[in-house]
Amino acid sequence: MAAKKVIFVVADGMADRPIPKLDRRTPLEAAKTPNLDQLAKDGISGAMNTVDVGVRPGSDTAHLALFGYDPNVYYTGRGPFEAAAVGFDLKEGDIAWRGNMGTVDENLVITDRRAGRISDTTPFADEMNGTVIDGIEFILSPGSGYRIPLIMRGKGLSDQVSDVDTHVANVKVHEPEPLDSSEEAEFTAKVLKKFLQRSHEVFKGMEINTKRAKEGKPQANYLLIRGAGFRPELPNFKDKYNLDAACIAGAGMYKGIARLLGMDVFDIPGATGKPDSNLLAKVDKLKESYNDYDFFFFHVKGADPLSHDEDYEGKVKFLEKFDEVVGELRQFKEAVIVVTADHSTPCTLGEHSADDVPVTIYSPEVRDDDVEHFNERECAKGRLGHIRGMNLMPIVIDLMGLASMFGA
Amino acid sequence: MAAKKVIFVVADGMADRPIPKLDRRTPLEAAKTPNLDQLAKDGISGAMNTVDVGVRPGSDTAHLALFGYDPNVYYTGRGPFEAAAVGFDLKEGDIAWRGNMGTVDENLVITDRRAGRISDTTPFADEMNGTVIDGIEFILSPGSGYRIPLIMRGKGLSDQVSDVDTHVANVKVHEPEPLDSSEEAEFTAKVLKKFLQRSHEVFKGMEINTKRAKEGKPQANYLLIRGAGFRPELPNFKDKYNLDAACIAGAGMYKGIARLLGMDVFDIPGATGKPDSNLLAKVDKLKESYNDYDFFFFHVKGADPLSHDEDYEGKVKFLEKFDEVVGELRQFKEAVIVVTADHSTPCTLGEHSADDVPVTIYSPEVRDDDVEHFNERECAKGRLGHIRGMNLMPIVIDLMGLASMFGA
Repeated sequence: MAAKKVIFVVADGMADRPIPKLDRRTPLEAAKTPNLDQLAKDGISGAMNTVDVGVRPGSDTAHLALFGYDPNVYYTGRGPFEAAAVGFDLKEGDIAWRGNMGTVDENLVITDRRAGRISDTTPFADEMNGTVIDGIEFILSPGSGYRIPLIMRGKGLSDQVSDVDTHVANVKVHEPEPLDSSEEAEFTAKVLKKFLQRSHEVFKGMEINTKRAKEGKPQANYLLIRGAGFRPELPNFKDKYNLDAACIAGAGMYKGIARLLGMDVFDIPGATGKPDSNLLAKVDKLKESYNDYDFFFFHVKGADPLSHDEDYEGKVKFLEKFDEVVGELRQFKEAVIVVTADHSTPCTLGEHSADDVPVTIYSPEVRDDDVEHFNERECAKGRLGHIRGMNLMPIVIDLMGLASMFGA
Repeated sequence: MAAKKVIFVVADGMADRPIPKLDRRTPLEAAKTPNLDQLAKDGISGAMNTVDVGVRPGSDTAHLALFGYDPNVYYTGRGPFEAAAVGFDLKEGDIAWRGNMGTVDENLVITDRRAGRISDTTPFADEMNGTVIDGIEFILSPGSGYRIPLIMRGKGLSDQVSDVDTHVANVKVHEPEPLDSSEEAEFTAKVLKKFLQRSHEVFKGMEINTKRAKEGKPQANYLLIRGAGFRPELPNFKDKYNLDAACIAGAGMYKGIARLLGMDVFDIPGATGKPDSNLLAKVDKLKESYNDYDFFFFHVKGADPLSHDEDYEGKVKFLEKFDEVVGELRQFKEAVIVVTADHSTPCTLGEHSADDVPVTIYSPEVRDDDVEHFNERECAKGRLGHIRGMNLMPIVIDLMGLASMFGA
């Protein structure tokens, strides 16, 4: 009898490189992870390049591939994914941008791309949200921290418009320019320029900035946007796999991707998407809703920000906390349980790398192998071999007994 | 901190098959190679098909793939690569052919495809170089040994013309025939026929052939050409990777490929591209120019001709000599060091095979694995798994910390 449920666990940025201060072990090798190890013993393991060998994946492209959506086909830029992350319901024709509240001087030279890492952009979003210029509506919503995604809604827009954010400080903000010769690109750039000027004037005059000036903090006076993109046209997960899917995640980005795929997305108190997240609350949610879904996307973010902070000791501790979650999930002995990462984030690097990630797939029927420890080194010896992210869902579907035969 | 330099070592034809007289070991397994073994211990290893599984690569296609240029896109036939190898500066519209000086009898039947492996084609090239027929210039230059590449320069040429060389002896030379119905192909074949007839007449009457006849040697009386091709349009290596690259090689073919990619190419006294090559002179050149480049293509030819000669004992000795080179290169502890081959040349076969080649990548940050010996058998157990040649440069670029992220 094939398994009927899938618990699909993605520990963001879990994989790493050898760390000199851990005797050239990775955090996964250094952490005590009896439950992950048992899962590896009971399952089949491998090494996986989520996008491709030598490709440094973003979390967004990696997740698309993990769910079986080729990012070379479906990825339309970060803007739409971040908009989805904050709960925007993008409509066809909308253009979404990623954005930061930044600081510019009187010559529009960027002095701080994140306005002193301002912690809340709500007042700025509220002030400009709903502005209409030349028939185009500008929709703003606070993102996490200094982030503030922007949607342009209306007729005749194009995503072929250049970034305003310069990606580096101490240069003048870029004017948005059309990237092709279409009327739509020209129109989009033109109306966007008007909006950016107007919002700059408004932001400058806001009381919160007067207050920040008094406190010696950088002004949040410019909307630095980048990564324009249309809503990606993603086939619904349910249509693709005929599985009812739920997302159990804390961080907005992953909820956003799940929403784009048409999964049900839970809001779980205490699931913050940070290292302090209440992971066991997420397990409880899974237990509670176990009978209602076929597929659970269980996302754990904490290891990734710790890696970006190069905090390998914190990462070891977090992985031990994560191991308890895996211990709880192992109780579902009839399910297919996948544990993997979306990409490596080596603490020695502080950012994503192209290194492969370990993957273990457990099901009651799986061909278990000789791998006894869940980590980068040991999983790479497993009998799954080296796979790509796009291979994972087909394997899962086959272990569920749901794969259709090619031929007869 | 990511490595900033790359030493990219290709030992031509290094990989082999089990050799009965070496107790079914390969030359790499039989040779004492402590430095290669240490590099494998410190690095990550794998098995690599430079072009694809089951594809028997030429040195040219293999090198294109190793440098990240898909040979299915960029390879335009061996002719242009061999022309580049002897230093021809091909111009747009030129057709390049590989050629041998061969021996034909009075009925134009080939009796020796290499004219008794004649060692110098200079007199023949000099005699016919600069000939103009129907507005087409024929440019000849001596290649190594019996080789003599040919360039056709002028308006209205096509590379869709069949080989003259039959690839086997004891058959009549082929007339060049158009391979499509274009005017250009017809014209090219026609003018080429005239040239081949004229040159045959000239070669027959040359004093050197009279002398060879007296000595009982085969006449060098026919230009056997094959592999017509236009100049390949290869994106510059610097544009592609933003790395300043230098080529340290003895053999002409590899210098030629490096020139086509826009690398700086050194002429190193004593670097002959043969088993007797002064490999340490090449190491000295690398040390001397280390600060001037980001990427060193370090090519070692010797193992390949020994393999073609089925000289497995000579190959073992050469690989031990090569190991000393690796010992020198290992001193660059902050660099990314790649050691691999472009293809296997089994001594039991005397020519290239489709077998994969071992590859080891070292960098200070690399995920080392449990491989302790650099050879075909052990590297295939490494955690790099089985990769393709096209995967190699992306991995190197990622280890340099220079890979751009796909997504965010």
